[in-house]
Amino acid sequence: MNQTSIDVLEIGSFSCGGQIASVHGREPKRVKVARNGPDRIVDLNGDYIAGQCYVQFTRLLKPKYPYPLMLWHGGAMTGATWESTPDGRPGWQMFFLRQGFDTYNCDAFERGRAGSAPYPEVYKEAPIYRNLNEAWSLFRMGPKGGYSTDLNKRKIYAGQQFPVAYFEQLGAQFVPRWTNHGQESLSAYYEAMEKVGPVVIVSHSQGANLAMEAAQKRPDLIKALVLIEPAAAPQLEPADLHNVVQVPHLFVWGDFTGDDGLWSDYRAVADEYAQQLAAAGGVSDTLDLPAQGICGNSHVPMMDRNSDQVAQHISDWLFTQHS
Amino acid sequence: MNQTSIDVLEIGSFSCGGQIASVHGREPKRVKVARNGPDRIVDLNGDYIAGQCYVQFTRLLKPKYPYPLMLWHGGAMTGATWESTPDGRPGWQMFFLRQGFDTYNCDAFERGRAGSAPYPEVYKEAPIYRNLNEAWSLFRMGPKGGYSTDLNKRKIYAGQQFPVAYFEQLGAQFVPRWTNHGQESLSAYYEAMEKVGPVVIVSHSQGANLAMEAAQKRPDLIKALVLIEPAAAPQLEPADLHNVVQVPHLFVWGDFTGDDGLWSDYRAVADEYAQQLAAAGGVSDTLDLPAQGICGNSHVPMMDRNSDQVAQHISDWLFTQHS
Repeated sequence: MNQTSIDVLEIGSFSCGGQIASVHGREPKRVKVARNGPDRIVDLNGDYIAGQCYVQFTRLLKPKYPYPLMLWHGGAMTGATWESTPDGRPGWQMFFLRQGFDTYNCDAFERGRAGSAPYPEVYKEAPIYRNLNEAWSLFRMGPKGGYSTDLNKRKIYAGQQFPVAYFEQLGAQFVPRWTNHGQESLSAYYEAMEKVGPVVIVSHSQGANLAMEAAQKRPDLIKALVLIEPAAAPQLEPADLHNVVQVPHLFVWGDFTGDDGLWSDYRAVADEYAQQLAAAGGVSDTLDLPAQGICGNSHVPMMDRNSDQVAQHISDWLFTQHS
Repeated sequence: MNQTSIDVLEIGSFSCGGQIASVHGREPKRVKVARNGPDRIVDLNGDYIAGQCYVQFTRLLKPKYPYPLMLWHGGAMTGATWESTPDGRPGWQMFFLRQGFDTYNCDAFERGRAGSAPYPEVYKEAPIYRNLNEAWSLFRMGPKGGYSTDLNKRKIYAGQQFPVAYFEQLGAQFVPRWTNHGQESLSAYYEAMEKVGPVVIVSHSQGANLAMEAAQKRPDLIKALVLIEPAAAPQLEPADLHNVVQVPHLFVWGDFTGDDGLWSDYRAVADEYAQQLAAAGGVSDTLDLPAQGICGNSHVPMMDRNSDQVAQHISDWLFTQHS
């Protein structure tokens, strides 16, 4: 592991996208908000900003890569995905900073620091939440029903690279999510990319599915796509092919995908997309980790014990595309 | 403004606090989560991590201050408070990094990247939301009812330091909040301080009220408190005085507090606390900005045009306490 320091010009954040959403007809309430302060009227009626994403940047004094990295997390997650690993090692954000990439680490519309507008007034549907039990099999720590709060009773896939003793640190990263707001997420992301300029997107799971659509619609803004275990893929219409072929794609897959039918299904959809792209003349590479002899990776390779090894492959690929 | 770069050893994050909360008796639902993927069962029943805070750190290669700065945001906000200002200048986190402080920028229990557990299953009460109309007067941009989505129609206090043309960037930072969970927030923060070691807390509004209680209970973990416009104050029991006097307190107040009755009331409670502390022999300093000839500051001086000037006063005070 590279323990060198980095020379940082600026760390900061901004919001992109969103518009005014107004709430009317709610009864104001008198609430004690601050201890030992007077009650105050809380009136939910009024104007909110809804639909924005949050973008946190770290700009190096002397970046070595010609384009910044934009990091798009997966469903029910935030930019915390890319920070420290659950067992406390430096994560991919730090890895790529050390490799000379500026990073723009995003929280999508409605997730984390992006905030969410009032439900049920602005968002009509209730959010869903991810529990540890679902995450255990969905993120392929072990088989369905294999999670236990008792560390010794967990059913773990043999050779698992995820540090399962710290699984609750992953669980602590989950945030409420809505399932039907992908287009709104993309609208905010487009504004962020317009502000930052052409970027490389490193994306995960649900975020990777969105990133593929972004390449269809806005290839002018995207210099390469890294797709970590995309949760399926958008439709690839013939009319979008001339856009998509402009953007090199790298698909990255971990281990144990055959055990859970869901990931086999998602991967089949994404593999077909990758083949269509290759057939049309695009750069469509796949880093199948087990096929490369890198075994035991979960759905979150950026948190696995060999996270730096996987990141190095991605970094090498990116420097092959642009330098 | 200091535009020098900083030598950073590591950027990362972790969760602290929280425990397992279980949900039972909900009907699983079949939901299309990923486009072009199969439906999948979403089962909210199970175990969640609830009660954690999120801590994002930036550690310098060679910090100049002997203690790290822990940043505690105010109500309905997140650590975004301390990042870039709404008009895009470097914020206080960057200012203090350049001054040689390590920073630990937190999202409290249930806010932002800390995530929140299912409502109504785990949290019985609904969150409240802050709209732009409330924030306009509460954050003292101008009088009650003074907000308009039309920039030209906003009623703005004369001499206002907040960059009101970018007010929506502040609005985009608001997140859902609960009003009755202060003790849970503190529990998670105590764990974070135990992990990091003794810290200086720079706190805002609701966070400052919590920080005062933290000094009563855990003076061993707190080397100094900076209290930016505390939303009132906790009770100061005689039994806690011997703890509180160990921790130097700096109270910081902006302008226009007389115009809105709420802030006069909150300040009166905090001023009385400051006097009790001083009478007991503690370091109890107040930086009353208008009294120092620094006029026009809102409730969020870390976002105001003169944010660096205010931060410099705080930094100077901190170096007077410890160096």
